[in-house]
Amino acid sequence: MAKDKKQPRPKAETPKGFRDYFGAEVTERNEMLATIAEVYQAHGFDPLETSAVETVEALGKFLPDVDRPNAGVFAWQEEDDGKWLALRYDMTAPLARVAAQFRNDLPSPYRRYTMGPVWRNEKPGPGRFRQFYQCDADTVGAPSVAADAEICGMLADTLEAVGIPRGDYIVRVNNRKVLNGVMEVAGVLDPTDPEKFEEERGTVLRAIDKFDKFGEEGVRLLMGPGRLDGSGDFTKGAGLSDAQCDTVMGFMAAKRDTGAETCARLRELVAGSALGAEGVEELELIASLLEAQGYGPDRIVIDPSVVRGLGYYTGPVFEAELTFEILDEKGRKRSFGSVAGGGRYDDLVKRFTGQAVPATGVSIGVDRLLAALRAKGRLHGKLPGPVVVTVMDRDRMGDYLAMASELRAAGIRAEVYLGNPKNFGNQLKYADKRESPVAVIQGGDEAERGVVQLKDLILGAKIAQEASLEEWKSQPAQVEVARADLVAEVRALLARYED
Amino acid sequence: MAKDKKQPRPKAETPKGFRDYFGAEVTERNEMLATIAEVYQAHGFDPLETSAVETVEALGKFLPDVDRPNAGVFAWQEEDDGKWLALRYDMTAPLARVAAQFRNDLPSPYRRYTMGPVWRNEKPGPGRFRQFYQCDADTVGAPSVAADAEICGMLADTLEAVGIPRGDYIVRVNNRKVLNGVMEVAGVLDPTDPEKFEEERGTVLRAIDKFDKFGEEGVRLLMGPGRLDGSGDFTKGAGLSDAQCDTVMGFMAAKRDTGAETCARLRELVAGSALGAEGVEELELIASLLEAQGYGPDRIVIDPSVVRGLGYYTGPVFEAELTFEILDEKGRKRSFGSVAGGGRYDDLVKRFTGQAVPATGVSIGVDRLLAALRAKGRLHGKLPGPVVVTVMDRDRMGDYLAMASELRAAGIRAEVYLGNPKNFGNQLKYADKRESPVAVIQGGDEAERGVVQLKDLILGAKIAQEASLEEWKSQPAQVEVARADLVAEVRALLARYED
Repeated sequence: MAKDKKQPRPKAETPKGFRDYFGAEVTERNEMLATIAEVYQAHGFDPLETSAVETVEALGKFLPDVDRPNAGVFAWQEEDDGKWLALRYDMTAPLARVAAQFRNDLPSPYRRYTMGPVWRNEKPGPGRFRQFYQCDADTVGAPSVAADAEICGMLADTLEAVGIPRGDYIVRVNNRKVLNGVMEVAGVLDPTDPEKFEEERGTVLRAIDKFDKFGEEGVRLLMGPGRLDGSGDFTKGAGLSDAQCDTVMGFMAAKRDTGAETCARLRELVAGSALGAEGVEELELIASLLEAQGYGPDRIVIDPSVVRGLGYYTGPVFEAELTFEILDEKGRKRSFGSVAGGGRYDDLVKRFTGQAVPATGVSIGVDRLLAALRAKGRLHGKLPGPVVVTVMDRDRMGDYLAMASELRAAGIRAEVYLGNPKNFGNQLKYADKRESPVAVIQGGDEAERGVVQLKDLILGAKIAQEASLEEWKSQPAQVEVARADLVAEVRALLARYED
Repeated sequence: MAKDKKQPRPKAETPKGFRDYFGAEVTERNEMLATIAEVYQAHGFDPLETSAVETVEALGKFLPDVDRPNAGVFAWQEEDDGKWLALRYDMTAPLARVAAQFRNDLPSPYRRYTMGPVWRNEKPGPGRFRQFYQCDADTVGAPSVAADAEICGMLADTLEAVGIPRGDYIVRVNNRKVLNGVMEVAGVLDPTDPEKFEEERGTVLRAIDKFDKFGEEGVRLLMGPGRLDGSGDFTKGAGLSDAQCDTVMGFMAAKRDTGAETCARLRELVAGSALGAEGVEELELIASLLEAQGYGPDRIVIDPSVVRGLGYYTGPVFEAELTFEILDEKGRKRSFGSVAGGGRYDDLVKRFTGQAVPATGVSIGVDRLLAALRAKGRLHGKLPGPVVVTVMDRDRMGDYLAMASELRAAGIRAEVYLGNPKNFGNQLKYADKRESPVAVIQGGDEAERGVVQLKDLILGAKIAQEASLEEWKSQPAQVEVARADLVAEVRALLARYED
């Protein structure tokens, strides 16, 4: 048509950093999320789904996350009132908004879970997308660390529910208050002037969060004089003395065989700091609450090396790590690593209301956990292919549709070939592409005789791959059955291949 | 803290036209969508989830939808390359993009379903939101109307699967080609010059789509000289003569008792138009294909009054209407109305590739269908409340957490009260707000004696509402049971109230 020529054709492509999910990628994620929702709900958490769009004001463009203050959002301005709106970049900011907006209606404490996409306006990279799923559970309004303990236990339950066996994961728990106690002992925190040394503490926090990456030496450089990396870039250090660094590193290495021993060691390290002592007490309480519910150190441990990068945590922090080994891109064995993390953040709701509201929560990295389940062979990445009813005679489409209907009524996924039926080979190629287990064939002759042909496509593929001519002959991949027995015969055929 | 004073507090509010979904609003929608997905999948449709963000170029800011060419999207410009991105406003434009982008990998025909939010940058109004769910199924690459018939049948199956009983819905089918045939007969379509009278035809299309609203007289005015509404606004008409209007109105009134009779009447009306005759043939074929699968006129009918507003339909169009009556805002009875619609659109993929790709599909109005299920009493709008373990002694939190754990292990939703336990009345108020069926109570005395108190909150609420003092005495809403029997006793209590 003349009109089409007026403008160039649009490009059929996803925007940079975005992707589409097909077939089992969608269903497997949905199934995993449904399982997680079940565990969360059993624990008394209620679902919440906020809108994807928030006011930039409510999002808080600069949450106290020193690590990424310029974290980009996708934002635009409203035409009528000039207000800036943006896509949410996590689930915590919208929760803080909801907790403030509906504070008179929600139960207190308010346990909620939520799952859905979040958006980051960042430079995309390999495996790094600008839209991805998060799955969070948080408790708002519960000051006691029993709420943190509950979430740690629930996290362990969740991992087992989705298919990570006990022994293949560990939930590590730490407490920012202990870390702050250590900072106080090291002389970079003054309880009478909390803002003093804030920059240094931020640098220390980020440094020790990179322990896995840079090792002890690198972390000491970042806490001390600064670090020059291989490319010649210099990262400014926190300027701590060697003795100060020793104190902090002692904290990182404080883990002992049992939670009680670790806590005892931490108590020594924070001696003299009231905040630190409070933090150790909280850890002891968490450990005892978990024990009371049967979560032993094979599932949840006190581990001072967990700090979590986010600046807004104020108390307990936790992280779930999968401990089984996988091969990385270069074929080297490494442990799978972190799939979830969280902690207590008592100041986020305060932004809106002025009143401090204690809150704690966890966020599961949905894509990481799916990848883990794939690595463990728990997901197959395939939808069950439909039975394909082929079309030999286009005037008898009603008969073919009726066959598919009957199969579906018996719970069997089935469809009629709806392309141009002229070339029968194309129909079988289509059935292959659909990973169809069985093709149903009925020409005019078969229709007259009241029969259909069933082609066993799984067996057919196996024979084509493996079998010798003799075997092929002895195992016919195609059988003729009575039309009236269609459903029963297809069911029998499918039963052969059920796991 | 000093910092908080530097800037005014952000307002805790959802942006205009957006909303949050709580509790059962989330789970009931998810359950309905899961049921729909099951039906779609049984029919051979595969899930697809495209990203929420598309290039404005791919979305096609001006899809051939004459009714709403300025339909707004939420759009913004990329910082690096200046490209405009936008949130998808429906599921059809992204499907067209995917069908073009992955045309070498996807099976052909490609049946896909998708469900998720879409965004419209429109003026919000009561019950009119700028983010809402759509749930679509489409077949791309199937030229035969068997694909349309399949979707109509699947739509009927879907409605029954989610809980709309047969008799409470009707799927109406029409064909744009028949309408165009009528236009040809009426002299506003010239097959040798398809663009001639395009504007008039658009006006006629929009006019007859408003039959329900304006009645025959109003539609005749819109097709003829134009219509002055109550507020004094004048809508320009298509300028058709009375005789031309008669022809079009004859089409609208062509429905007869059976599909065959309706088709016969339509054949008379389009006599002389090749396109019209083709359209009637397609309708006859659809009717016969549906009959072959057992979809009688109690479920799917040929109805010429269905036109669907969208300009891009090129063949069969269909609509599912719920026929049971509800009371509107003013307390008047009216039939519930449309919950889904769709049709054949053969030109959308062509925008990208230049090659025409036949496609047909349906979109279910998720919120409308949920509202219908609520009106039918199929949804209760409530999550099952958790058993609440109260806290009498905060030093024994571990015991309380263990009780909740045990209950959950037995499949009972349970949680421990995590607020300040000081005021026990607040704990019971909390349990009420959570719609908890049972509160578990254990003070120090009970702990020593190895018992717990179970408070039947459902019975308690009933007694408080209805019963006299005597009944209250005879039906104790609180019982003491052995701690060891906690799970069994709670289960027995809950069993009383199971539907």
